[in-house]
Amino acid sequence: MNDNTSANDWSKRVHEKWQSLQASADGRVWICMTSAAQLENQLTALEKRRLVGEKLPLLGLTFAAKDNIDALGFPTTAGCPAYSYQPAENASVVQNLEAAGAVILGKTAMDQFATGLVGVRSPQGPCPNAFNPEYISGGSSSGSAVAVARGQVDFSLGTDTAGSGRVPAAFNGLIGYKPTLGIISGYGVVPACRSLDTVSIFSKSVSMAALVAAVARRFDPRDAYSRHCSGKPIGSASGGFKFGVPSEKQLEFFGDAEAPKLFAAAVQHLESIGGEKVSIDYGPLAEAASLLYQGPWVAERFAAVGEWIEANSDACDPTVAKIILGAKNKSALETFRAMYRLKDLQQVAAKLWSQCDFLMVPTAPASYRIAEVLASPIELNTRLGYYNNFVNLLDLAAVAVPTGFWSSGVSFGVNLIGPAFTDDALLHFASRYMNEQPPVATNDERISLAVVG
Amino acid sequence: MNDNTSANDWSKRVHEKWQSLQASADGRVWICMTSAAQLENQLTALEKRRLVGEKLPLLGLTFAAKDNIDALGFPTTAGCPAYSYQPAENASVVQNLEAAGAVILGKTAMDQFATGLVGVRSPQGPCPNAFNPEYISGGSSSGSAVAVARGQVDFSLGTDTAGSGRVPAAFNGLIGYKPTLGIISGYGVVPACRSLDTVSIFSKSVSMAALVAAVARRFDPRDAYSRHCSGKPIGSASGGFKFGVPSEKQLEFFGDAEAPKLFAAAVQHLESIGGEKVSIDYGPLAEAASLLYQGPWVAERFAAVGEWIEANSDACDPTVAKIILGAKNKSALETFRAMYRLKDLQQVAAKLWSQCDFLMVPTAPASYRIAEVLASPIELNTRLGYYNNFVNLLDLAAVAVPTGFWSSGVSFGVNLIGPAFTDDALLHFASRYMNEQPPVATNDERISLAVVG
Repeated sequence: MNDNTSANDWSKRVHEKWQSLQASADGRVWICMTSAAQLENQLTALEKRRLVGEKLPLLGLTFAAKDNIDALGFPTTAGCPAYSYQPAENASVVQNLEAAGAVILGKTAMDQFATGLVGVRSPQGPCPNAFNPEYISGGSSSGSAVAVARGQVDFSLGTDTAGSGRVPAAFNGLIGYKPTLGIISGYGVVPACRSLDTVSIFSKSVSMAALVAAVARRFDPRDAYSRHCSGKPIGSASGGFKFGVPSEKQLEFFGDAEAPKLFAAAVQHLESIGGEKVSIDYGPLAEAASLLYQGPWVAERFAAVGEWIEANSDACDPTVAKIILGAKNKSALETFRAMYRLKDLQQVAAKLWSQCDFLMVPTAPASYRIAEVLASPIELNTRLGYYNNFVNLLDLAAVAVPTGFWSSGVSFGVNLIGPAFTDDALLHFASRYMNEQPPVATNDERISLAVVG
Repeated sequence: MNDNTSANDWSKRVHEKWQSLQASADGRVWICMTSAAQLENQLTALEKRRLVGEKLPLLGLTFAAKDNIDALGFPTTAGCPAYSYQPAENASVVQNLEAAGAVILGKTAMDQFATGLVGVRSPQGPCPNAFNPEYISGGSSSGSAVAVARGQVDFSLGTDTAGSGRVPAAFNGLIGYKPTLGIISGYGVVPACRSLDTVSIFSKSVSMAALVAAVARRFDPRDAYSRHCSGKPIGSASGGFKFGVPSEKQLEFFGDAEAPKLFAAAVQHLESIGGEKVSIDYGPLAEAASLLYQGPWVAERFAAVGEWIEANSDACDPTVAKIILGAKNKSALETFRAMYRLKDLQQVAAKLWSQCDFLMVPTAPASYRIAEVLASPIELNTRLGYYNNFVNLLDLAAVAVPTGFWSSGVSFGVNLIGPAFTDDALLHFASRYMNEQPPVATNDERISLAVVG
């Protein structure tokens, strides 16, 4: 909001958002919502801050947080009601957003313990796709994506370990910004794989994601995995750029008839705005992707919640419990061997950036009906990781961009992927892709909020 | 050697070194030595290269390599004769040294599979201390240190995971340079803990270590853990500096009566050359040190040689076999938990560098007779790691500097320790400590060899 916004303007807008949400509540999307009293408290406090001239770059904006992210006044369940606890404070990222004036409207549904890319591993029932309720929303940040797609909030927070901030963006027609590891604090977030987790941002426009990123990204001494955010440019000054695409025979759509055409159209679109396509060897990336599910990192999930699940397995989604408890027998030996292999693959992957400025891959190779995923809960989930699982293991940044629709109505998306700290450059290319005005420098908190409205 | 060195000068010197070594061979120090024919081949080839004007900054210098480092023409045994293999090529670091004109005189004894800080876990018998043969030489790079201390070679290569490049330096009156992880290639080295290993350098002077470092440190695409060497300065331009020392109650000498005085003298010496002592909290460093032996990293040793030891346990040192085979039951869960704890400790340790420019700790808290270590092979070994084990886990650089003697004649040393990539700054402080001329810029290969003679 601009400085001359009146109290009337911004708080009226937030109120309307809240009221409209109450009228359209859906337990498969929202786990809990801000009460009238909670809302009034937030609005009153914000108006005081506004009147004394505080900078509030997100004033007037509403958001939702995935339910593995602590927000004061709401229980954190991580998608498992029996696990519920009342946090003593906000997660650092929620703190940063509220400090900038954003108002939280509630907590959203998710694949339990952020273990899944499907959005059906939820005790509240499968989260329906925003465009076609027979189809999955994608996950694990299912509710956060659908809430934005339905227009219930301006943006939302997800988390992303294996693709949970990208897959639901694609299926619901959103931008899904998955930051470089560590630049948004994970303090106050229930870990999935702590060494590979990041908070992510969903929004309808790139500008909104960039605006939110600007206040969300803060070094945090309370998170040992926190890193300072240093921008890294990509592409040439002339505006020309090269984008890498898996070679024809490595493109994998698992039999989906429409996805190849949707992806080909995305390639053509990127060429039409000045990009030069480069065919890259996807083999090392696919191998890294397979390491995530087949390798030892699942033991990090056990480290986070495994003992609790052992004691409360009846209260858990059976697929989730099976995956996490299965990690108990992984050895230190296979852990180090996988890390050596990953190190090799990191060296190979690093060479990609001499061939191209960023990669473009489908976000999801195929879309599925809820019934299909319930019938084949592991295999179809794994397919959704094909273009996503390697990203955090290789310490890359990504922006999922929606581009086209399946004939079912479900949205198709692509991931723009670059080296760590190319976040702003990727957001810039995403805005070019979307034909938006390029986002302004995203670390300036005083961006005027042209995107609201 | 200067450019006007004649063939006579340099090859005569190398010949004399070789002859003198043949006359004083000691199987507890040298596992195998360069034959007369091998020597002639090296000298002939080098003289040809000299005559065509090649830059040979190490011409005229001789060295030894620890027997876990591949050198063409010698078997690699890693201190276990049954493990012996004939390498097909030089380790990258040996290649770099020979390319610069250095001549290898043989391979040296070590604690088997680099598992030990004592120098007694060797099938050839305990390696005797250079100053008092009743005492341990320290390990695992025992032979490499003693060969330099006896003046048999100008410098030598060790390896250092837990302190193997520092403890033997201290006990034998040498400089022990333990580089930042990854800046000397590990390609062609039998791993101990691959993610924590580095090649190290022993020499009598800091200038010699710096000279050798200048050619040894090369990025190597064949080693996935290789890193580019970027210098990081420490201290102020005025020459004043602060050095951190464990608080009085955290200094640990395990009952050694003389070491506290020797260390106090080292502190005084550093103050006398302009340093300001700062008392630091050693707790987080001690905790990181204990993680190395009690934590999961020993599984890396199993990853390297565990299956071979399982099949050949009769051919192994029983202590070494017990340690490495014990790693088989470590889990992925405890691995990740230890890594999380290490990450916390890394954050804490990083704050040290706002308090001081570098740390100074004893290299070894006490010295032991060979007979004492044979009687208590695990416990006394662990003590020697007290001031060393944390260094590679926390990604630090170190230079061990000799300073004073126990009444037994065994040398006492201190470690100068700084953040990753402060190698040259630490070498600079080491030369000030030793009252040497400061080493010239160590990445210039054309350093004139004032140190020879």
